Amino acid sequence: MEIGKGLTMIAGPCSVESEDQTYKTALPLKESGIDILRGGVFKARTSPYDFQGLGIEGLKILRRVGDELDLPVITEVLDTRDVAVTAEHADILQVGSRNMQNFSLLKEVGLADRPVLLKRGMSSTIEEWLNCAEYILEKGNSKVILCERGIRTFETYTRNTLDIAAVPAIKQLTHLPVFVDPSHGTGDPELIGPMSLSAVGAGADGLMIEVHHNPAEALSDKEQAISPGKYSEIFNQVKRMSAFIADNF
Amino acid sequence: MEIGKGLTMIAGPCSVESEDQTYKTALPLKESGIDILRGGVFKARTSPYDFQGLGIEGLKILRRVGDELDLPVITEVLDTRDVAVTAEHADILQVGSRNMQNFSLLKEVGLADRPVLLKRGMSSTIEEWLNCAEYILEKGNSKVILCERGIRTFETYTRNTLDIAAVPAIKQLTHLPVFVDPSHGTGDPELIGPMSLSAVGAGADGLMIEVHHNPAEALSDKEQAISPGKYSEIFNQVKRMSAFIADNF
Amino acid sequence: MEIGKGLTMIAGPCSVESEDQTYKTALPLKESGIDILRGGVFKARTSPYDFQGLGIEGLKILRRVGDELDLPVITEVLDTRDVAVTAEHADILQVGSRNMQNFSLLKEVGLADRPVLLKRGMSSTIEEWLNCAEYILEKGNSKVILCERGIRTFETYTRNTLDIAAVPAIKQLTHLPVFVDPSHGTGDPELIGPMSLSAVGAGADGLMIEVHHNPAEALSDKEQAISPGKYSEIFNQVKRMSAFIADNF
Amino acid sequence: MEIGKGLTMIAGPCSVESEDQTYKTALPLKESGIDILRGGVFKARTSPYDFQGLGIEGLKILRRVGDELDLPVITEVLDTRDVAVTAEHADILQVGSRNMQNFSLLKEVGLADRPVLLKRGMSSTIEEWLNCAEYILEKGNSKVILCERGIRTFETYTRNTLDIAAVPAIKQLTHLPVFVDPSHGTGDPELIGPMSLSAVGAGADGLMIEVHHNPAEALSDKEQAISPGKYSEIFNQVKRMSAFIADNF
Repeated sequence: MEIGKGLTMIAGPCSVESEDQTYKTALPLKESGIDILRGGVFKARTSPYDFQGLGIEGLKILRRVGDELDLPVITEVLDTRDVAVTAEHADILQVGSRNMQNFSLLKEVGLADRPVLLKRGMSSTIEEWLNCAEYILEKGNSKVILCERGIRTFETYTRNTLDIAAVPAIKQLTHLPVFVDPSHGTGDPELIGPMSLSAVGAGADGLMIEVHHNPAEALSDKEQAISPGKYSEIFNQVKRMSAFIADNF
Repeated sequence: MEIGKGLTMIAGPCSVESEDQTYKTALPLKESGIDILRGGVFKARTSPYDFQGLGIEGLKILRRVGDELDLPVITEVLDTRDVAVTAEHADILQVGSRNMQNFSLLKEVGLADRPVLLKRGMSSTIEEWLNCAEYILEKGNSKVILCERGIRTFETYTRNTLDIAAVPAIKQLTHLPVFVDPSHGTGDPELIGPMSLSAVGAGADGLMIEVHHNPAEALSDKEQAISPGKYSEIFNQVKRMSAFIADNF
Repeated sequence: MEIGKGLTMIAGPCSVESEDQTYKTALPLKESGIDILRGGVFKARTSPYDFQGLGIEGLKILRRVGDELDLPVITEVLDTRDVAVTAEHADILQVGSRNMQNFSLLKEVGLADRPVLLKRGMSSTIEEWLNCAEYILEKGNSKVILCERGIRTFETYTRNTLDIAAVPAIKQLTHLPVFVDPSHGTGDPELIGPMSLSAVGAGADGLMIEVHHNPAEALSDKEQAISPGKYSEIFNQVKRMSAFIADNF
Repeated sequence: MEIGKGLTMIAGPCSVESEDQTYKTALPLKESGIDILRGGVFKARTSPYDFQGLGIEGLKILRRVGDELDLPVITEVLDTRDVAVTAEHADILQVGSRNMQNFSLLKEVGLADRPVLLKRGMSSTIEEWLNCAEYILEKGNSKVILCERGIRTFETYTRNTLDIAAVPAIKQLTHLPVFVDPSHGTGDPELIGPMSLSAVGAGADGLMIEVHHNPAEALSDKEQAISPGKYSEIFNQVKRMSAFIADNF
């Protein structure tokens, strides 16, 4: 897998809940086609009384499932003190929306020997987002992947407003790869398919999609997770459209 | 042309400036491929000291150029008192963003025997937009076309934030056709191509694009108009992608 | 009453529903203290199936109640064709948020021999708002009153976000008087008192408050109307604070 | 000083730049009237190439100046690893807007034996903000002060849109004290006075204002800092208005 060549697919559960759940979700993804397995272990939750993730235990589960299925894994890191241990177990570090301007964390992942996927803050301008990437690059880590995941607007029909134009806009400004997360971007399983095709049309380098082997029982974000079967359909469509674009335009 | 079958292309100048300018813009569009010719004659401008359009004279020019090239024409109407005369000369009436909740105008175009293209207000929710369509439908005019043209957010890199997810969202809620205007949606000629493909990927029924035979000399919106040559490129790409999707998915 | 000298109070029902309701609301306002009686007769409603106002009949009711209590009256006008008849019966014309950029209407009220209260559009910048005032001024009508009524943001706890800083900001840019409407601005009767004091602290020249003699039975905006008794309390507080500021700062 | 009784004034420089600058700013504030001295030592800056603060050296300067003038001091903490050392030198810990949802940091300051001033995130709803306060409270730290500092909207005339209605709204929901920061909220020295009075009118328990002994030479936020002389004027007005409200309403 080389990010920026063709369309890179990241998928997996919002949270690593158990080895069984992670494996049951990851196996059909592997069979359908996937490049990187995602799974949250340190969870940033709106309320302190929500499920906070399995922590280091979850990290080890994710690693084992990744190894078993021969898949690189990505997980979000929330605390400067967890960067080292996370980098030990995960292939890619993720900095989430709520921490996009957590400058201490940006500096710390900038020192890690791992690619970093940097999600756009909910109310961040493109310029601020690139400045945050600069915090990582400035520490010597050049492997930054940007990920548009929706911005906050007055519209409440969708969970966020997916700013697809950010994809070609960023390509005017930088050579960094740009991914799109239609799961958080819409919060609606029915919209993930159309918005995945839309992102590919706009030139996205990759997609990040939340999948759960049994969405109704997910411990977090269950309203936006899709099943492995639905993922398989979307995977087939986006891969064919990506190939069509590469061959024709 | 039947709207909702395949991809419908609306293009033309922001403003009808003269017969010569309108014809010089429309002719190459006709040669490239176009379904409906657009051109503004009553202009809604931020400042009263900006060019306000040619009015009824412009309406006649648009009609003559449309007739000469065998193209239906669409133009925006701003005032209840202009609906009748506009309906006499134009095939489709447009209600612009700033008038989306001008309920008197909605009722008046609801009484006209013409399809109406209703642009989304800059800060309108999808629900409010559909309620405005309802004002037209309730008067007995069932030919309403919705057009997403970008919403207002904190992001200033693009002129507006094109809410592409509104396309599949609206398809969950109504059978009305949904178009996308990437010209106002981005305000950047370089982004119109990628966002047109993105809109088609999301399932848009049509596109509305601002073209001027000489963008640098346009009397309004010159920073976002594209040339007929650029339009031709985009037209070819979106038509092929639309056909690919229809054939494959 | 001279607008811009001291604090001008506009109050009254969202809609004129009947002569009885208008009188029962206006009488206690007169007794508490009020400068201008408001009442909507042409109503801009989100849905075509909501109460649309009494129209010209309502205009006559408002005029009669105003005359009986010796109060100038203000009402909103929605359609260019209604400007003349409204100017015949009302002392001040109001252009609402949804029509702030209805340029035909702005030009028409610019020709009327009546002061115009221009509400800020829900997603209008201060600069766009002043440009709309310019449409009225340019027609020779210099009596424009600006009214901040809340802008649309991601926050849904309040109906809109009252941009109080717009008051001193506008005073940097123009000599036109600026009012604040805490009723639409918050949508919450409990917040109208504190936000009225807040507006006075920021330098507002007047307030516009929705009052109904029986809020629970109002035909429109009943969730934000206050009773005449509550109005009386707020009136006393804002008048005393306004006098304190005038005397001390 | 007991927060929540009368109006609490926090003021001081955006950044502690040197002992001389901190003292020269703090001394006239002490003479005018002030409750808590602020000064940033760990700076959250949009770009990694901007001034990043003096760190622990700055913390010690702030402490010494506070001790000399007998003033409690507050400073922002950005990193979980800095909480202990900051709590050793500062009387109050601040969590800034960009870290409002840095849940690791919230938990850490929740364990510190210091009051915490929690600024609202730029695009945070009131509900999310209170959930973040809950992260601190849940760790056993009940001394949380909320601070409204402006939210991000489409309006660019002011740096942010100060959501003054959040003050009475929060008083409906919690007993925690609510402060307002008109410096970040407006970004305009001319608007700080009117918006301070506005905040007091709305019921704010305190204000936080950026002051620099020589604003033109400030190393950060120089465009919004006011001089000690200007602070003195504002202090006198808000204190008198606060007393007037306490005595009369």
